[in-house]
Amino acid sequence: MARYKVILSYDGTHFQGFQRQGSVRTVQAEVETALRGVGWQGKTVLSSGRTDTGVHAAGQVVAFDLDWVHSEEDLVRALNANLPPDAAVREASRAADDFHPRYDAVERRYEYRLIFTPHRDPLRERYAWRIWPTLEVDRMKVTAGLLQGSHEFAAFGKSPVPGGSTIRYIYAADWAAEGDELRFTIRGNAFLYHMVRRLVFVQVQVGQNRLSLDEVESSLRSARPLPPGLAPAQGLTLMEVRYVGNRQEAVRLMKTLL
Amino acid sequence: MARYKVILSYDGTHFQGFQRQGSVRTVQAEVETALRGVGWQGKTVLSSGRTDTGVHAAGQVVAFDLDWVHSEEDLVRALNANLPPDAAVREASRAADDFHPRYDAVERRYEYRLIFTPHRDPLRERYAWRIWPTLEVDRMKVTAGLLQGSHEFAAFGKSPVPGGSTIRYIYAADWAAEGDELRFTIRGNAFLYHMVRRLVFVQVQVGQNRLSLDEVESSLRSARPLPPGLAPAQGLTLMEVRYVGNRQEAVRLMKTLL
Repeated sequence: MARYKVILSYDGTHFQGFQRQGSVRTVQAEVETALRGVGWQGKTVLSSGRTDTGVHAAGQVVAFDLDWVHSEEDLVRALNANLPPDAAVREASRAADDFHPRYDAVERRYEYRLIFTPHRDPLRERYAWRIWPTLEVDRMKVTAGLLQGSHEFAAFGKSPVPGGSTIRYIYAADWAAEGDELRFTIRGNAFLYHMVRRLVFVQVQVGQNRLSLDEVESSLRSARPLPPGLAPAQGLTLMEVRYVGNRQEAVRLMKTLL
Repeated sequence: MARYKVILSYDGTHFQGFQRQGSVRTVQAEVETALRGVGWQGKTVLSSGRTDTGVHAAGQVVAFDLDWVHSEEDLVRALNANLPPDAAVREASRAADDFHPRYDAVERRYEYRLIFTPHRDPLRERYAWRIWPTLEVDRMKVTAGLLQGSHEFAAFGKSPVPGGSTIRYIYAADWAAEGDELRFTIRGNAFLYHMVRRLVFVQVQVGQNRLSLDEVESSLRSARPLPPGLAPAQGLTLMEVRYVGNRQEAVRLMKTLL
């Protein structure tokens, strides 16, 4: 028996989110079914965190204990043969026996994609939020800059732990334009529930001149509430979760940041 | 009553191609149903040409005669309200009474997308052909260069008209790499049935060293047959169809090319 770390991609369109819940179709339930097909007898897989209904992933991380005598590459192939077309394993590797994809993570990277076009766009709306008219991108880039560092994000989401801290560390956040598309990339130590969709929504409000930079800045200082609202799920993709050598190092890094 | 030209986008995944045929789900049938909802009483719309089952479009062109007292922008909105989520009108405009989207076209542009990755990729395979291991892109770029100009494409597809010419003029063809993606762009006056998917398949064979540049070159000179096969439909998108002022100019242009 050994612990394995698996990197998972999925198109969130037809999943009710990552986390298993009753009999609805979730990514976790599909992964656990695929694992049972290769002899897994565990109760539940570990993950880097849940994703909402409709959110995509290119780099979700899942871990489990398995008796597997073949190669890691064979494990990828066996699991992909058992997974549905909208979910796939990209990579599998042996991990430390106590590896935990959530507690050991030191960085998550998300991307959110906007497209600016006046009418429906069937080829791009599966993975983007369509907005018209266009936004003031310069204001949004300045807002993204405000997010960097350690901040109070209480106005942007709830802690996954009841009563838990709402302070998070953002390594980098920026908007990049390409043609009529605008892509938000954010890297942070961890994120509150709904936080990235909320950050995108608030920045779009800034880009529409409905909200000032000062209002966002004072919210990050004093948790002052901001207008409610979430950017739609389908624009968001969890791109990557990063780890350092071991949990001790991860804990030490977090202490220096927060 | 006036003739309208409409630019159409669709995700081909769940369509049995463009052309209406019995009761199966096609783009043409959906467009005609949407048009009936705004008072259209015609029998059939005109198009720039059919696309195969599973092929996408960002710029298919359709024309029809309609009594419409509102603006062109209102027509776009009304049709989009009647179309399913996987098809949408991008633009509508008045056209000459004898405008024909197929006979008046002087250029069609297609894109074909390849991704190089060893395992399934649910976020990208809807719009790409996944290949592993990677290909020799330089050989493919040279092959694409051979396509430019007027050539005998009998080894690459059938004329849509029985016994019709299989000579076509290619304005430009090239492969562009970006990360682990490779995108083929081809612009030609017109294309034979299956021609772009066939060209991609043959170039991939060249990129895999299964076919030489000489074999492709002599096929373009003498219609020498090449190994059979088609690149999968889901990688292909009809991007744009272009027109000049009127049919006379279009006919004149084609005479100088072919």
